[in-house]
Amino acid sequence: MKFLDQLADITKKNNSLLCVGLDPDLEKLPAHLHSEKAQVFAFNREIIDATHDLVCAYKVQVAFYSAFAKEEELAQTITYIHEHYPQVPVILDAKRNDISNTASLYVKEAFDRYKADAVTVNPFMGMDSLQPFLEQKDKGIMILCRTSNAGAKDLQDLKIVDGKPLYWHIANKAVKQWNKNNNVLLVIGATYPQELAEIRALTNDMTFLVPGVGAQGGDIEATVRSGINSNGAGLIINSSRTIIYASKEKDFAVAARKIAEQTRDQINQFR
Amino acid sequence: MKFLDQLADITKKNNSLLCVGLDPDLEKLPAHLHSEKAQVFAFNREIIDATHDLVCAYKVQVAFYSAFAKEEELAQTITYIHEHYPQVPVILDAKRNDISNTASLYVKEAFDRYKADAVTVNPFMGMDSLQPFLEQKDKGIMILCRTSNAGAKDLQDLKIVDGKPLYWHIANKAVKQWNKNNNVLLVIGATYPQELAEIRALTNDMTFLVPGVGAQGGDIEATVRSGINSNGAGLIINSSRTIIYASKEKDFAVAARKIAEQTRDQINQFR
Repeated sequence: MKFLDQLADITKKNNSLLCVGLDPDLEKLPAHLHSEKAQVFAFNREIIDATHDLVCAYKVQVAFYSAFAKEEELAQTITYIHEHYPQVPVILDAKRNDISNTASLYVKEAFDRYKADAVTVNPFMGMDSLQPFLEQKDKGIMILCRTSNAGAKDLQDLKIVDGKPLYWHIANKAVKQWNKNNNVLLVIGATYPQELAEIRALTNDMTFLVPGVGAQGGDIEATVRSGINSNGAGLIINSSRTIIYASKEKDFAVAARKIAEQTRDQINQFR
Repeated sequence: MKFLDQLADITKKNNSLLCVGLDPDLEKLPAHLHSEKAQVFAFNREIIDATHDLVCAYKVQVAFYSAFAKEEELAQTITYIHEHYPQVPVILDAKRNDISNTASLYVKEAFDRYKADAVTVNPFMGMDSLQPFLEQKDKGIMILCRTSNAGAKDLQDLKIVDGKPLYWHIANKAVKQWNKNNNVLLVIGATYPQELAEIRALTNDMTFLVPGVGAQGGDIEATVRSGINSNGAGLIINSSRTIIYASKEKDFAVAARKIAEQTRDQINQFR
């Protein structure tokens, strides 16, 4: 099944555009989990069990695992979602980018090793570096376009000679050249609703992964109003820290569910 | 010791600007190694033992390991170099890039987990995404500027309103804003000697990591003449496939040494 079809189904079923980011920071995990052998997986499993009917996807950020040699728990987490909640797709947030020979290996990492349904990629090295990803017809290929951080302006906002910023050119290439397999999405920060609206206008109904609500300060109303497409969808709105660290106590999963539900409903209010 | 000082010492000692890329492709490893339990490490060890006095650095490309869950052998390889040839620095070719919270974890991955001496990073997300790397004063932070692949032109060559291409702006920011700790290097493909010369003129004696000679077709003479700095150095010229797969037989390490020596000498001819 194509990622975008799976996404459409679960968005409808769970009535949700919310993606929960499973970014387990060892220092922030509840104390009672510290004695568990696979504490990261144990943490994720509880969050997943508590939120699976509220989300349209989960996103795992590779760095939170690779910094601590926890690749095994990353794989376990994805397998757990696939086995228990097969309708919910998993996004591997890796932002990889390299020459095509190497990019093919990152494709293997994302889809053969981790069995992710979608992956984030950085477009800096151009079309041939993206090609091995774009060939994965059933996967979601999420290309960074206008990111949520303040430094995004340093390069992404530079105006090209035609007067359009670099991010506009990326969105334009995504629509006109890179999306032959109808598997391309764009990553656009919630912290820049104006840019979000501009890219929506340029890309018709293309789906966006939108990080930056919650801890990063992105505003939900502005995000939804600026980014929603003509089907009342086209957004995967990610929140990580605000949800998964809602409590550091034994009730962390219940607390996470509560915030996830509030966030989902808040998003739906403006759809 | 600062990476750039270590690099200067070994460049002098081994009279070499050559970096050997340890990118072990399972399908290309000599047949007699297939029965070894840690065949990737066994392969690397022989290449390292055979070439350590000919190089100024080794570069390990993470994807060749992470695609096959071989993080352990990647770590073993770097440890082996540090223990046996402590003068030779190791570059982790990871091309990471993310918001600063996540970038800090990639810093941990590169320097705490793998104990690399330098790392490649992608600048697309701007200054704050680079900051956690730039704060590592003793490490080498190698920022992608003009890459060796054909698709590099898609974004990196786009002309900004001042008439300068995007890669020029990256080189300019690297010199003027990002190099406060004197630990920044640029990654510039050997396949584009004209751009290399242009960036050399802009960045004074800054050191470049130059991939793309050998299998990717970059010309050594043009690379050295365009890229050398006023000290007759300032280049780390990487070759991977042409050297490490010089032979697929039991003599692969001897064959690799022969090509490495030829490449080093060819480079020196034009210094």
